[in-house]
Amino acid sequence: MRAAVMRNRQLVVADLPRPEPGPGEVLVKTLACGICGSDLHALRHADRFVEASRRAGSAFTMDLARDVVMGHEFCAEIVDHGPATARTLRAGTRVCSRPSLIRADGPRTVGYSNDTPGGYAEYMRLTEALLLPVPDGLPTELAALTEPMAVGLHAVAKARLEADDAPLVIGCGPVGLAVIAALRLQGARPIVAADFSPRRRELAVAMGADVVVDPAATAPWQSWRETAVWRDPSHAPALPPWIVGPAVRPAVVFECVGVPGVLDQIMAPAPRGTRIVVVGVCMEPDTIYPMLGISKELSLQFVLGYTPGEFAATLGHIAARRIETTPLITGRVGVEGVAGAFEALASPERHAKILVEPWRA
Amino acid sequence: MRAAVMRNRQLVVADLPRPEPGPGEVLVKTLACGICGSDLHALRHADRFVEASRRAGSAFTMDLARDVVMGHEFCAEIVDHGPATARTLRAGTRVCSRPSLIRADGPRTVGYSNDTPGGYAEYMRLTEALLLPVPDGLPTELAALTEPMAVGLHAVAKARLEADDAPLVIGCGPVGLAVIAALRLQGARPIVAADFSPRRRELAVAMGADVVVDPAATAPWQSWRETAVWRDPSHAPALPPWIVGPAVRPAVVFECVGVPGVLDQIMAPAPRGTRIVVVGVCMEPDTIYPMLGISKELSLQFVLGYTPGEFAATLGHIAARRIETTPLITGRVGVEGVAGAFEALASPERHAKILVEPWRA
Repeated sequence: MRAAVMRNRQLVVADLPRPEPGPGEVLVKTLACGICGSDLHALRHADRFVEASRRAGSAFTMDLARDVVMGHEFCAEIVDHGPATARTLRAGTRVCSRPSLIRADGPRTVGYSNDTPGGYAEYMRLTEALLLPVPDGLPTELAALTEPMAVGLHAVAKARLEADDAPLVIGCGPVGLAVIAALRLQGARPIVAADFSPRRRELAVAMGADVVVDPAATAPWQSWRETAVWRDPSHAPALPPWIVGPAVRPAVVFECVGVPGVLDQIMAPAPRGTRIVVVGVCMEPDTIYPMLGISKELSLQFVLGYTPGEFAATLGHIAARRIETTPLITGRVGVEGVAGAFEALASPERHAKILVEPWRA
Repeated sequence: MRAAVMRNRQLVVADLPRPEPGPGEVLVKTLACGICGSDLHALRHADRFVEASRRAGSAFTMDLARDVVMGHEFCAEIVDHGPATARTLRAGTRVCSRPSLIRADGPRTVGYSNDTPGGYAEYMRLTEALLLPVPDGLPTELAALTEPMAVGLHAVAKARLEADDAPLVIGCGPVGLAVIAALRLQGARPIVAADFSPRRRELAVAMGADVVVDPAATAPWQSWRETAVWRDPSHAPALPPWIVGPAVRPAVVFECVGVPGVLDQIMAPAPRGTRIVVVGVCMEPDTIYPMLGISKELSLQFVLGYTPGEFAATLGHIAARRIETTPLITGRVGVEGVAGAFEALASPERHAKILVEPWRA
């Protein structure tokens, strides 16, 4: 089968053997697979990625000397069932799945494993028990966005928002946009979102941001302070007389950039008690100034992925158009186009989500 | 009056004018004032201390070109009342107070201000409304420990412990010991505590630690894993078969060291979902690897100080001997001895808390 392969820290097109589904597994044909920012990081910072996952105690880290087929945001079609399967969903059924292959000796992450290919290949094997059928009428390309949108749903759930919390989203790439959609779904408003790219700010508005900020022109915290007034002024705490200006609501920041230095930029001007949810995946070391966190009692909640329930709920939200994902899809490529798409995604003006359709000519 | 003064980034003994109490203020005689690790940091890293508090938006940062009298852990005696005071507590009453002087243009931190002296001087002025009378029968030197012990009470409150959470205390200096006392008070056990110093491990046991660890011999997380078994095994989550070893309870770590690198050492081997409460005051930049936090969904809650209620409750706990502070006091000096005490505190084998008694000959 044809696949875009990470080999010697490069993306190349190669012919690989079609995977054989093991016990409890199905063979699927990849219909569409989104390119994730984490894949760009993993290619660029491959050694750091592996080192960090090893230090974190992951049992199956990638061996960079061997092939890896990335791709973990997919919609696929069942082709065949392996041994010991229930076959509740028949061949031809379109499915989504969390990118995890459950094996007796531990799970493999589909898309970051030497042992099983991800969605940048024509075929994958998946664990039958994790499959979710795609509702009729939901286009394949929108179903493929379940995984990245579930990341936003999870990040907002981990923030444990309360009624008066006022959100600020830093970075409007796919992760930030997913967070905006989830905030909107939860009714946490106004949503203030910041990105240097005009195109991404447009997308942020399309996904539900109320106020967008260009950090080159205005400090995001300044826009946030102007909007984060109390809905019900009787909820505002009594302030001592030397506090200048109106009281602001509790701040919850979603860090959706994932490059060194952003945490410090958020922490320095953050109001006291700000909760920072770290959704952006920074694979490099980062410098923080603990005194900034201490003096204002900030918190950092790092988040990753989603629960099985959140993943399934997201597919339902997309199918019911409670989360509108159409604006996010800005490109489609075949396996030959993957390397070029990785390059193109570096420019925030052109793309949000590019889908790989491995069967595309 | 005689005082130990921070002048040109050195501690010197000097004669200073006795402070005049303003409206709502009282003049007090300092009976005993503990030397805090933050004071050691503030002297050693004075410029970073000022820079960090300025970046964090503090209105009254110290001017290092002018004198500062440190000392914010005190018990004092009322000498005189300023104008516009209620005089509910009479001259001669022993009092504790949060180290804050409330002024119309904003609060000054007693002990980190150019405008008002802290407890390393014979006299201070304090805000009358913040004074708490010391209960009869409570020795002055134990009352002086209210402030540092309140730090532990607050840190444990911010951890929002649940019944099955298993604590790990990293660092058994005064801050770590205060956290141990507060954990014991709350019944969060077993308490695992780590410190390189045998003397500090002894103190940790005296304050209520169940298991102490020498990190030079055993990894603190290893000792923690051996003790953090489920009290009620029916509470333990069902684990997939590839997880080796027994399930551990949710981990809550108290970082009580405050030097660069400790956060990373805690984060790398931490179990998934660990909550890290950062109580140690690190005044230098620190490097973290966000991927470690992300891959295990760790959280960092930075904490500082205490609420007025926690401060008052701590004084009550000390008076009722629910928090036993006697073992902590390892030395007493007059103002001439402050500089030497700062040196001596660098050795964890000799000292925990040294009290400054400014009237001591």
